[in-house]
Amino acid sequence: MNEFSQQAIFSLDQRDLPTSWINILPDLPVPLPEVLHPQTKKPMTPGDLAPLFPKALIEQEFSQERHIEIPKEVLDILKIWRPTTLHRAFRLEKALGTPARIFYKYEGSSPAGSHKMNTAIAQAYYNKEEGIRRLTTETGAGQWGSSLAIACAMFDLECMVYMVASSFYHKPYRRYMMETWGARCIPSPSQETLAGKEALKQDPASPGSLGLAISEAVEDALLRDDTRYTLGSVLNHVLLHQTIIGQEAMAQMAMTGFEPDILIGCVGGGSNFGGLVIPFVRDKIKGERADLRIIGVESSSCPTLTKGLYAYDYGDVAGLTPILKMFTLGHRFMPPPSHSGGLRYHGMAPIVGHLKTLDLIEATAIAQREAFEAGILFARTEGTISAPEANHAIAATIREAMRCKENNEAKTILFNLSGHGHVDMVAYEQFLSGKLKDIECPEKEIDEALKALPVI
Amino acid sequence: MNEFSQQAIFSLDQRDLPTSWINILPDLPVPLPEVLHPQTKKPMTPGDLAPLFPKALIEQEFSQERHIEIPKEVLDILKIWRPTTLHRAFRLEKALGTPARIFYKYEGSSPAGSHKMNTAIAQAYYNKEEGIRRLTTETGAGQWGSSLAIACAMFDLECMVYMVASSFYHKPYRRYMMETWGARCIPSPSQETLAGKEALKQDPASPGSLGLAISEAVEDALLRDDTRYTLGSVLNHVLLHQTIIGQEAMAQMAMTGFEPDILIGCVGGGSNFGGLVIPFVRDKIKGERADLRIIGVESSSCPTLTKGLYAYDYGDVAGLTPILKMFTLGHRFMPPPSHSGGLRYHGMAPIVGHLKTLDLIEATAIAQREAFEAGILFARTEGTISAPEANHAIAATIREAMRCKENNEAKTILFNLSGHGHVDMVAYEQFLSGKLKDIECPEKEIDEALKALPVI
Repeated sequence: MNEFSQQAIFSLDQRDLPTSWINILPDLPVPLPEVLHPQTKKPMTPGDLAPLFPKALIEQEFSQERHIEIPKEVLDILKIWRPTTLHRAFRLEKALGTPARIFYKYEGSSPAGSHKMNTAIAQAYYNKEEGIRRLTTETGAGQWGSSLAIACAMFDLECMVYMVASSFYHKPYRRYMMETWGARCIPSPSQETLAGKEALKQDPASPGSLGLAISEAVEDALLRDDTRYTLGSVLNHVLLHQTIIGQEAMAQMAMTGFEPDILIGCVGGGSNFGGLVIPFVRDKIKGERADLRIIGVESSSCPTLTKGLYAYDYGDVAGLTPILKMFTLGHRFMPPPSHSGGLRYHGMAPIVGHLKTLDLIEATAIAQREAFEAGILFARTEGTISAPEANHAIAATIREAMRCKENNEAKTILFNLSGHGHVDMVAYEQFLSGKLKDIECPEKEIDEALKALPVI
Repeated sequence: MNEFSQQAIFSLDQRDLPTSWINILPDLPVPLPEVLHPQTKKPMTPGDLAPLFPKALIEQEFSQERHIEIPKEVLDILKIWRPTTLHRAFRLEKALGTPARIFYKYEGSSPAGSHKMNTAIAQAYYNKEEGIRRLTTETGAGQWGSSLAIACAMFDLECMVYMVASSFYHKPYRRYMMETWGARCIPSPSQETLAGKEALKQDPASPGSLGLAISEAVEDALLRDDTRYTLGSVLNHVLLHQTIIGQEAMAQMAMTGFEPDILIGCVGGGSNFGGLVIPFVRDKIKGERADLRIIGVESSSCPTLTKGLYAYDYGDVAGLTPILKMFTLGHRFMPPPSHSGGLRYHGMAPIVGHLKTLDLIEATAIAQREAFEAGILFARTEGTISAPEANHAIAATIREAMRCKENNEAKTILFNLSGHGHVDMVAYEQFLSGKLKDIECPEKEIDEALKALPVI
């Protein structure tokens, strides 16, 4: 019996689907800094958030409950694709010649193709429950917009997606998907909002950014009573909904007989990373898993955690969102276009930044070409074509596995493969034909944008 | 507890993966007609096939063993994504208001995105075992070419794919995928073969066809000692490798507590359909499951089973392949371009045709728009965007479910969702924007092509 005869997929039975989300807030050794009001710059009350979000989500944003029950209606939809599988990448291990054991949690099997659906379903549900008829959002690469589009189809809500213009034109398949699920999707900046009009006035060919698209979606929601805004990452309640990933992964790792020594996830806004690691971080805070390393991997063209400031900043360009204490490159920073739209965000989930300041997690940045090289090796060994964002996690995993080889250590690495790359094939083609260049870290622009910080 | 609280996914443990394929040949009440040599038109011997296929596959093509063991090396790769899940489509049932229970086997979770990988892995393995260095094939929509590309990457074989020109230019994402997995992919007709050159001389803008691409891939393989040809459907050994689908589905249906009353699959060459139904057909032949209806669904623009002849014909345009007794529209028939490239084939698996002549299965044809309408409803209820080919199976399922509603019968329907539609989004967009027309059944062209039959 050779090594490949071992089990390669670890499936949980649907009856073992987690029934609650894990809230890390009450277990943090130092509480999360307060959220400030964008105008008054005073601590924000739940009431201040009511024009943007339904009550249940606002409660979750500030909750001190350790476990929050997943509503049955949400579970019933999560059951369409969950639990997701956990895999051992035997063939990647062999190609690298590493003694490391490489596992990955695969979130690309959701109908939308990524982990984003976990929170989309929950957010659509709570909005529907409170009588909301229409949801707005922004999307970069399109994975979040796709997820919200499905969620709205399932709860019979209208869905309006402001898609970062550069992605809208370069990734038409994602738009077609959103339309297939019944959403309306337009390029941002658009003529439908003041923020969009202003941006187009300054640059009629603006490629847009997540920060700008957020401004548009927020403005749209604020103007209509029947409409609320949804965010696919960054906020506490979003990471909360993603903890289903880490809970499943923990149960599945127990099935493998190995404990992870290293956890890896890519970080854009922080939600797939947070979702995987929060259940493990909680153990670390309790004094368990003391040696577990947890690594967030960002794009070196948008190095929020590795080169940003930990400071109060807006989540959007126009300054309409609450002010958050987070790692940020400055809300005016326009990340250079890359193929990892999901990693093109100036900010970072407050929880993720807080964990970094507490030394509970590490961060590293990887350039585009190394990420695609890793993605190609993964595709040729394990079959799956991964999203450009997730290729960063694969690349960091390969770095760690090669370090194990040098040191002859049989460590166990678990990474989150947050989404598939089926609609990112143009980027793969550019890489294969030698046209894909590494994007220089825009040091000067970052320095400039950081000057505006902190905003209070 | 409402109906949605029931289990929606039925997962087999990886340790319960089938370890042998089911060969229907020895159980057929009437033996399959002989295969004839393309030149001599005499019954073909295994030796005659040696320039095209490795010995192990030729043996399987004619085998009278009821069970053929799956080699460990093949199982080890199947384990990357198998067993696949079986789902209950609760939300589709509800949208239709049908008392029918709708289940589907989901083959879109393979790294290539369809069932085709099941046989690609086996074929690559047997070729590698016999010292072959390079494989050729044709592909229509690109799902088969993608599957072979991965299989070749995994067994370190060169892969050469002749892709039907109309798909090559309209579905670039599939080509980029094949290249990501390391294959070479060129449009057919090409200048690399005599068959291709001849076709280009007659029509420099030829959109190509599967029959023509087969001629090219066969010619390429015949000219090189280190090269063999592979076919993604039609042949007995291909359907054999696909029986893993039906075996898993049978075990999973037992988990649901329901016995299927109706099985449904789309049919192009017949492999996803054959793979699902063969294990059930065997029971039917034994006198069990007497009332089980089994329905193959084809495209009305290429109605092989419903309007073709059951006659001896070539599998390709140039007449290089063995002569098979099958349902066919004539090997010179050029199916009109449709978005279901996988259903655009003039012939049909001999096993499938034989089962139809024995009244063990039925056939129906569905037009493109009805199929896409079904696909959209499925996407908005169950989330998954299905391949255009598989939309035909969904449409037939909906027809049967609506019949159950009229008759107030709670039948259990199981269909095969053979692949996802992530790289078919242009077709969805055309449907949504009203540009997608039904393709007239080309009656005149079919009549013309049928005149050449039988070829002996």
